[in-house]
Amino acid sequence: MNLDRTHDAAVKSWLASANEPHCDFPLQNLPYAIFRRKGESEAFRAGIALGDQVIDLAALLRERCLSGLAMQAAIACTQPSLNEFFAMGPGAWRALRHAAFALFEAPAGNVSATPDTDVLRRCLVPQALVEYSLPARIGDYTDFYTSIDHARNIVKLLRPDPVLSPNFQWMPIAYHGRVSSIGISGEEVRRPLGQRLAAGHSVPEVSACARLDYELELGIFIGVGNQQGEPIPVTSAEQHVFGLCLLNDWSARDIQMWESTPLGPFLAKNFATTISPWIVTMEALAPFRHAWERPADEPQPLTYLDAPANRSEGSIDIQLEVWLESERQRASQAPAARLSHTSFRHQYWTIAQMVAHHTIGGCNLQSGDLLGSGTISGPTAAEAGALIELTAAGKTPVALGNGETRGFLEDGDAVVMKGWCERPGFARIGFGENRGAVLPARTVV
Amino acid sequence: MNLDRTHDAAVKSWLASANEPHCDFPLQNLPYAIFRRKGESEAFRAGIALGDQVIDLAALLRERCLSGLAMQAAIACTQPSLNEFFAMGPGAWRALRHAAFALFEAPAGNVSATPDTDVLRRCLVPQALVEYSLPARIGDYTDFYTSIDHARNIVKLLRPDPVLSPNFQWMPIAYHGRVSSIGISGEEVRRPLGQRLAAGHSVPEVSACARLDYELELGIFIGVGNQQGEPIPVTSAEQHVFGLCLLNDWSARDIQMWESTPLGPFLAKNFATTISPWIVTMEALAPFRHAWERPADEPQPLTYLDAPANRSEGSIDIQLEVWLESERQRASQAPAARLSHTSFRHQYWTIAQMVAHHTIGGCNLQSGDLLGSGTISGPTAAEAGALIELTAAGKTPVALGNGETRGFLEDGDAVVMKGWCERPGFARIGFGENRGAVLPARTVV
Repeated sequence: MNLDRTHDAAVKSWLASANEPHCDFPLQNLPYAIFRRKGESEAFRAGIALGDQVIDLAALLRERCLSGLAMQAAIACTQPSLNEFFAMGPGAWRALRHAAFALFEAPAGNVSATPDTDVLRRCLVPQALVEYSLPARIGDYTDFYTSIDHARNIVKLLRPDPVLSPNFQWMPIAYHGRVSSIGISGEEVRRPLGQRLAAGHSVPEVSACARLDYELELGIFIGVGNQQGEPIPVTSAEQHVFGLCLLNDWSARDIQMWESTPLGPFLAKNFATTISPWIVTMEALAPFRHAWERPADEPQPLTYLDAPANRSEGSIDIQLEVWLESERQRASQAPAARLSHTSFRHQYWTIAQMVAHHTIGGCNLQSGDLLGSGTISGPTAAEAGALIELTAAGKTPVALGNGETRGFLEDGDAVVMKGWCERPGFARIGFGENRGAVLPARTVV
Repeated sequence: MNLDRTHDAAVKSWLASANEPHCDFPLQNLPYAIFRRKGESEAFRAGIALGDQVIDLAALLRERCLSGLAMQAAIACTQPSLNEFFAMGPGAWRALRHAAFALFEAPAGNVSATPDTDVLRRCLVPQALVEYSLPARIGDYTDFYTSIDHARNIVKLLRPDPVLSPNFQWMPIAYHGRVSSIGISGEEVRRPLGQRLAAGHSVPEVSACARLDYELELGIFIGVGNQQGEPIPVTSAEQHVFGLCLLNDWSARDIQMWESTPLGPFLAKNFATTISPWIVTMEALAPFRHAWERPADEPQPLTYLDAPANRSEGSIDIQLEVWLESERQRASQAPAARLSHTSFRHQYWTIAQMVAHHTIGGCNLQSGDLLGSGTISGPTAAEAGALIELTAAGKTPVALGNGETRGFLEDGDAVVMKGWCERPGFARIGFGENRGAVLPARTVV
């Protein structure tokens, strides 16, 4: 990954909030979302986060602040989804990023003013005043299963003989998910009804899910697709990826257990998936790349999943946290409880490998497609990305710090995911938050 | 199901080709497709099949042949997909069907002319001169697994202990499929590359699929969706269904075998799915409904999957055939080989039950969503809907009649599916054909 001036932590913005030390959205980040002013009948359009503001790209165009390829890219961003911008490819993505960086950069040695500040300030909307919609028209959503620690935790819980599926170390396993029920951070998710088989019974019952769980994942937005029948080589796979968001793959464990053999999870997952509004670009994540290592005594990747660049910097060190905020905590203004903290760098397969595997048989990816990383669990128990792992399937509940405990999610619980990258000498690159709350089930139909 | 004048076989069309005895598209059928004249730069739009012609609904509008709700429905049909028409619901579907029936009906006692014939003939395009696109923007594609004969055939082949999955008789099992690779009849499908594990090996290899197969299915188009979190009751489920087409769920058996545990098929299916262009409406299928029976010694449906109307007429007797036409047959003008013949009436679960199950957890269906029935195999060996069943996984190849045999599909093979309903006293309701041919694999990437 090439680093350039847009990764230089010494460069500050003339917008003070972007320079706060724990800000998720400094000048070096510049993630994209689809937004509008809350409660107004404005059209949804694309914006870039900076500090506590949204840069309204349509306004930048009106004020004639952009030219050339960056202007063309910003025109694509006036649509109510990012698909058209995605399809323009890495050159356009880079041009708009660099143009925004230059406009909001503080002049050298003087962080208080620039000649354009008055005009540019008119192009800002406070994040506190906006609402978001899905960033793209998602054509297909694929959920992967790429954390070996998650896979090991699950087989230990569910199988008498705790052995990984023999294909796990040979391919990034995946299955297709549901697009229609993908929602944006802030949504309320209704606890699903469904069939489940009680222990020791042979006749299933229909009732509200009693083992509702979250899964901590990253969402990967495809920027540029491929033609059907034409695989994407692992060597160029990342050029097809626009960026990442936080993703909660809500899971109904009791429904999942009964329905998933032989064709995989279906109703256990398709009632809801929640993603964060801001997509952090692969370009902003460049300083946080890590070597991807495969121990010599484990299967080495097949040729179509192997590339020098993937080995040298295929992983990304993204810090991730899950917080739970109960109804009681909200009512008493008690702090939310942090359930886990891990990093995406532990994942057994990289994003490039996911893309190469997805297309090896000729399946066509399209601009705006979403891939889920699969649950992200790290090597220690406290790094597990789902309650089923943290609580040993409900047997060892976690404490919320206010006297409450949780085996699985209860009605009124809000699950909040956070993500960020930090490295000495670089600006913090944050993802904002991904929040979803649980509504009670409907009475049985 | 109510039968009315549009189901009366005694009514003929003034268009002679619609009255031919083996015609798939008599006046009583009136299925929908999205079409345009081949090789021209016309916009794709909706048409209705009648005899060997396409009724161009945009032309009917220009000629002012429609009024009221039928006209509104036809306006929605000028779009390049049927989604908007679907969303108008059963009242609009019925209005347009009845209006088209009245326009193309022969006056009583005189099948040679009507006053409007000249005008209406200008609204016809010969089917031989058109090309088709997908009938809808498909938001999500779900593939079911609802033939117990198929399920029994498969477990006998694959498992030492040939026992059905315990959930099979309790729920219409399903999994999510790939939307981007759904194509229309006539397409050529490239044989996929992928990982497979040779018998007796522990290290997989990457190569072209050696066990390429088809699956005979029906595609079910959702007309009207539901809100997220609000299940569709089985009693009203069919009001959400617009109609049916033929569907080939191409399957790479060797890839499937290695990848499908634990999360189900992925690359084994997502390289291609082919559907027929014409969607036959549920209304046209009304005379062919059958009782849906569940033997008393088998699990009875849970309440959300049970309804008197589903028991009395939940099934549909649709005759289905699969034909294989090899490159050699084509070159020598030898006839294609019929591989199997069965009926949709044997399916263990009905369409209404599929819709009710899909939404019980709150998953939202949308206008234009596609459900696959799952492979349709009947109770006898000759009624199997896939080569893996017909050939015992390749061990007992089928003869094509010209000296060739097939264990699985070879490059150049075309798979042709046909479907129709027949019942004494009623007009034949046909689906046309669903054709797809196999291209050789790319060399390994």
